[in-house]
Amino acid sequence: MVNFSPGPSQLYFTVEDHTRNAFKLGVPSLSHRSPAFEALYQHTQEQLRELLSIPKTHHIFFTSSATEIWERLIQNLVIEKSAHFVNGAFSEKFYKAALQLNKQAQEIKAQDGTGFSNPIKLDAELIGVTHNETSTGVALPKSFIYGLKEQNPGALLCVDAVSSLPYVDFDYSKVDSVYFSVQKGFGLPPGLGVWIVNDACIARSESLLAKGLSIGTHHTLPFYLKNGLKNQTPETPNSVAIYVLGKVAEDMVRRGIHTIRKETEYKAVILYNELMQHSSLSPFVTESTYQSPTVIIANSGKHTETLSNYLLEKGIVTGEGYGAHGGTQLRFANFPAHSKEQYELLVDYIKAFN
Amino acid sequence: MVNFSPGPSQLYFTVEDHTRNAFKLGVPSLSHRSPAFEALYQHTQEQLRELLSIPKTHHIFFTSSATEIWERLIQNLVIEKSAHFVNGAFSEKFYKAALQLNKQAQEIKAQDGTGFSNPIKLDAELIGVTHNETSTGVALPKSFIYGLKEQNPGALLCVDAVSSLPYVDFDYSKVDSVYFSVQKGFGLPPGLGVWIVNDACIARSESLLAKGLSIGTHHTLPFYLKNGLKNQTPETPNSVAIYVLGKVAEDMVRRGIHTIRKETEYKAVILYNELMQHSSLSPFVTESTYQSPTVIIANSGKHTETLSNYLLEKGIVTGEGYGAHGGTQLRFANFPAHSKEQYELLVDYIKAFN
Repeated sequence: MVNFSPGPSQLYFTVEDHTRNAFKLGVPSLSHRSPAFEALYQHTQEQLRELLSIPKTHHIFFTSSATEIWERLIQNLVIEKSAHFVNGAFSEKFYKAALQLNKQAQEIKAQDGTGFSNPIKLDAELIGVTHNETSTGVALPKSFIYGLKEQNPGALLCVDAVSSLPYVDFDYSKVDSVYFSVQKGFGLPPGLGVWIVNDACIARSESLLAKGLSIGTHHTLPFYLKNGLKNQTPETPNSVAIYVLGKVAEDMVRRGIHTIRKETEYKAVILYNELMQHSSLSPFVTESTYQSPTVIIANSGKHTETLSNYLLEKGIVTGEGYGAHGGTQLRFANFPAHSKEQYELLVDYIKAFN
Repeated sequence: MVNFSPGPSQLYFTVEDHTRNAFKLGVPSLSHRSPAFEALYQHTQEQLRELLSIPKTHHIFFTSSATEIWERLIQNLVIEKSAHFVNGAFSEKFYKAALQLNKQAQEIKAQDGTGFSNPIKLDAELIGVTHNETSTGVALPKSFIYGLKEQNPGALLCVDAVSSLPYVDFDYSKVDSVYFSVQKGFGLPPGLGVWIVNDACIARSESLLAKGLSIGTHHTLPFYLKNGLKNQTPETPNSVAIYVLGKVAEDMVRRGIHTIRKETEYKAVILYNELMQHSSLSPFVTESTYQSPTVIIANSGKHTETLSNYLLEKGIVTGEGYGAHGGTQLRFANFPAHSKEQYELLVDYIKAFN
């Protein structure tokens, strides 16, 4: 069985071995204040930095999920106003998290299946943008994201890259925060979020604290930083996941991020091409500017269940359409754990399906 | 090597096998909205309920750590005032979390190594009490905890049982919330907290929400409940840990919680007896009322390093004294993962140490 669902998705090839090794090395019983844990933490940090070219201006912290990061972003960075580009279920959840924290949150909406390309000026302390909408298979142009920062130099630009990393190569000097969870492109079991923030985010959270505002307890940016500088975490963390993430990042560095990116693009092209030519199927996202390379959605209409069962018989698990699209779409993740060969086979099967 | 450190501690005997099985069964790639996940979630709930005799009036939710639960308790349950019994580092962290969330938090203090036995009337919406202080090896009498509820029927009584469950057999009708993390008595790798709350807690959080107060985003009690009723979690969770916890609880049910409790008491008695008779060592907690059965602390003074190294040569990892006690104490966890035979050996080694 190969899992093409966009997450939790197919495990990366080496995850099970690394997990077994973690037990062999005693990682589950390590004190998170011990030198052995600090070395493990440092290794994961270094491998992520190398893989994603994260500069020293940006820090890497661990949460339990990307869902948690939405909450932490608002708590740490916003006094009054945030603005959110909403073009699907996940970008909407971030917007709603801001409302739940009693902020004046502004929503800029686009239809499902489309995105944004004109950066605009906004009255907000934080701007939330979803690079890759897992629910609709829309990727936003990086130029749009960078343009937002140019238009709004005083706002902190926070980018959801949950289902596009490690594929997407950001220029981190143009974004203040980027975050993801490990059960998508990194092919790990769920239970860990990765939160990248620059010094401007740290400074903002410190200024909120200095004003006497509450920014949370253990997962505040100043406390993350204080512990992170010692290669430690604020609390006893999911240490096995931190270990395995570092090893997978190391594997990906060895394989070459350039190769991974080229393969991702190749796999995306062959699937989109097939969907465009197919008699019963079509890509949900029609504008090529917005077609996500990492989450590809097919309009499958009345064929949805038949196609899904047909692929299941071939050993392929597809992702259901999200929410209201449940019965009429299928989603295909295109992550590093999905090999070229598996993708070619998937495309062949789809071609043969009428 | 046997790890007697109080956490992350020795893994329970079956944890590695269950983790391997989780991979075999595809747990890491399961959608948390799938029937297979719901069955897994339900199984863990049922086994925990049976093991700990948790009545239907109480719900069981999953967080990423017990540290997170301190924050969630205050966010969900307190408008203005909380009161905290502080007799060590961990009870103090909960008190400080309330201050960080800008509450009027009252601290009732006892010296390290002692506890509380007289329940008092308090002016607070929530009362925080640490059944077992992992930093000092002090367990509070259950009669004191239940007495607090009698004295303060309008306050929600929240009990930290991080390092005493599954040993301690609470009468859940006398406490509103109990919580723990899995890397202590359950012998799992860290990365999961378990939060038990009754309907009064749910009602309180709903009343805060109805007043327009923010109680957080994804980890609010109403949202936990809404998802929990479907055997789901608010966000993509650490599903492998939830699975393994359910299997370990099942193993413990099979072994018999009565047996586990009796063995815990036997192991505690032989170690405390040895410490009381020893020429170079003594128990840190001198009042028998407060001597924790699950975290036993030795005053080792100038012998600390020698004893620690001596035991290490025998394959025994001890826990360092906490904080300021680092160089003068050693801590010994007494969890279900520590067998009678291992404890007898530990006591023999200590007896032979001069």
